[in-house]
Amino acid sequence: MTNLSTISIEADIDRRVRTVQEEMASKQVDGCLIASSVNIFYLTGVIYTGFLFIPAEGEVLHLIKRAGHQLPKGHKAFVSKPEQIADNLRSKEIDLPRKLFLETDVLSYNTATRIATSLDTPEICNISNVMRQIRSVKSDYEIAQIRYCAKQHEAVYQAIPSLYKKGMTDIDLQIEIEREMRKHGSIGLFRGYGSGMEIFMGSLLAGNNAQEPSPFDFALGGAGMSEIAPLGANGTPLAEGCTIMVDMAGNFSPWMTDMTRVYSVGKVSKEAYLAHQVSIDIHDDIINAFHKEMPCCELWNRAWRLVEKHNLQPYFMGTKSQAKFVGHGVGLEINEPPVLTPRSKEVLKERTVFALEPKFVISDVGAVGIENTYLVTSKGLECITLFPNEIIPLA
Amino acid sequence: MTNLSTISIEADIDRRVRTVQEEMASKQVDGCLIASSVNIFYLTGVIYTGFLFIPAEGEVLHLIKRAGHQLPKGHKAFVSKPEQIADNLRSKEIDLPRKLFLETDVLSYNTATRIATSLDTPEICNISNVMRQIRSVKSDYEIAQIRYCAKQHEAVYQAIPSLYKKGMTDIDLQIEIEREMRKHGSIGLFRGYGSGMEIFMGSLLAGNNAQEPSPFDFALGGAGMSEIAPLGANGTPLAEGCTIMVDMAGNFSPWMTDMTRVYSVGKVSKEAYLAHQVSIDIHDDIINAFHKEMPCCELWNRAWRLVEKHNLQPYFMGTKSQAKFVGHGVGLEINEPPVLTPRSKEVLKERTVFALEPKFVISDVGAVGIENTYLVTSKGLECITLFPNEIIPLA
Repeated sequence: MTNLSTISIEADIDRRVRTVQEEMASKQVDGCLIASSVNIFYLTGVIYTGFLFIPAEGEVLHLIKRAGHQLPKGHKAFVSKPEQIADNLRSKEIDLPRKLFLETDVLSYNTATRIATSLDTPEICNISNVMRQIRSVKSDYEIAQIRYCAKQHEAVYQAIPSLYKKGMTDIDLQIEIEREMRKHGSIGLFRGYGSGMEIFMGSLLAGNNAQEPSPFDFALGGAGMSEIAPLGANGTPLAEGCTIMVDMAGNFSPWMTDMTRVYSVGKVSKEAYLAHQVSIDIHDDIINAFHKEMPCCELWNRAWRLVEKHNLQPYFMGTKSQAKFVGHGVGLEINEPPVLTPRSKEVLKERTVFALEPKFVISDVGAVGIENTYLVTSKGLECITLFPNEIIPLA
Repeated sequence: MTNLSTISIEADIDRRVRTVQEEMASKQVDGCLIASSVNIFYLTGVIYTGFLFIPAEGEVLHLIKRAGHQLPKGHKAFVSKPEQIADNLRSKEIDLPRKLFLETDVLSYNTATRIATSLDTPEICNISNVMRQIRSVKSDYEIAQIRYCAKQHEAVYQAIPSLYKKGMTDIDLQIEIEREMRKHGSIGLFRGYGSGMEIFMGSLLAGNNAQEPSPFDFALGGAGMSEIAPLGANGTPLAEGCTIMVDMAGNFSPWMTDMTRVYSVGKVSKEAYLAHQVSIDIHDDIINAFHKEMPCCELWNRAWRLVEKHNLQPYFMGTKSQAKFVGHGVGLEINEPPVLTPRSKEVLKERTVFALEPKFVISDVGAVGIENTYLVTSKGLECITLFPNEIIPLA
């Protein structure tokens, strides 16, 4: 935990709720019910199950199904099912909303339908993406958490050479890294947005396993250890000449970091070192070229130009299956907006925190390239994850 | 992974799909689209993102958004969004369903609405609970996986005294147990059903932290290490006279086990030993009284009778917050039906696998009681998790 004053958290929470209310006003929405843990946490500072009701104006009402040891501040009522929301609003003399914001990208069809029916709401609007957009611009408090998180993330990656032992497989090394992460305060649970983000504590890919596709929405795949978790390490022995790409979770505080580094068993092929350097060059090129309100596609295009220049297209972002993005926002969830895709006109606003991850997969070697987390400032990009870029040999 | 023949898996998959089709016939449903990982895995043997289409009769069609290194067997098509489902069905000369099964308890409102609109489906029915009911009765193959899982679970609990060191906190010990679990093949990811099941690799509760409520739907709570993960260990020092309740995940194979044991630092109070013995007595009483088609409420009521006899009502299933169930089904998810509640008339069918977890929380000591996983057989209950019941002292 970072040791930051609670005053700044409370000011943040007020500001966040007001921003939602401004969005509601601009869309003539007169009520909002938030149910996802991540948005309840963002808007209240704690997690409870139930519904956070935000009126068009005035104070929120916590409709709690089950609370933890910390209760949210403000008006509270207890509900055991969505059908009790209406009575609770009426008893507080709140008009039932005619146009209601719900997180319809993640809220189940049944819960959304039960809410709409019992409130007799004529119109439902989706607040999922609105919330993700609001969350993508970070406050000082959130940036301080991200900086704290980066320090732990760096310390874990620093320890990796001391965790390696000859004869290990990828999963053997990953298990030791997981332990090191936990000892540095990793909360374990790794939060992603959407149903295509099933991951444990991150990804470690060695040798040709880096080529294996996975059904999930990560930059690279890996076959995994079990058919019910087809991602990441698959028991590959860490053999001389292979790379080990470490992209483990930076979840040492609620606001996260994303960082990838490459380790190697002995020396790797010239081609692998070259491709790794191209990834570093892409980072440098984007840092140098960055300008105010730069659209996401320009970052992809700059990366692609260097990929083409070195004829590395068949290896970029995978081989058998190639991801069509080179980075993404980071925060309470590991995949926040914006996404750095070839066609996205979305601009990188000041105070956005995002990860840039140009990666290559080299046959019979493994994955190479680095990933860092950047903060968009008025002066350009500031790198938050500070760690040597080069491939780190394991002895 | 268990080393079981692939023939039995394929026979299982055929049987599972036929069972869904029988349910469809009985409800006059003419199409079913499955999207959750756990049900796609159950019905195909692999995980992909996308939709599994099951017609009223005949073979399934895999509508794949993204696949892993293993492709499902049978007809395949690729879709990038729900709106492409209709064209794919038409091109295979499949009539668009008029009454459609969707997993509306977990499928998002947006995805369900987009599917219904693009297929122009007049009626949506919920298959979420149907799938959970089908999954709750286990095949020989699934039972073999559960037995294999129990062996790993037992080995990890056996190792716990060797992992303990004087001066540890609860989280210190938990981290070492997590590593031991991973070394025994834990897949890490811990699957639960519904939005109230946020947990990492299980729960370890020491001393008075066992009294702290959590917002999630587990038997006991704990304050957790971070406000964004309010559950379980909270940094409590493992002090003389406290209990450590270990309820870590049995996810060593896709089909899981659930088991709780209690460890202690030195001796604990007489009251704690007594309550622990009552939990063991509840298990014995239920095993002895078990009969064919026993309803779930009868298990709760038998437990409650012994709780009352010993005047332990204020400590049963928590103190500040008390859970109103004493067990639950276990399988691909840790919380399967049936749930052992005071009023459930649901019967425990043969081949159901469930966990029984009568627990008590004793002030200034911690949680006591055991949890085992049972298989319902024609002859009664068979305990799958075989491990000494007594409180295990740590030196």
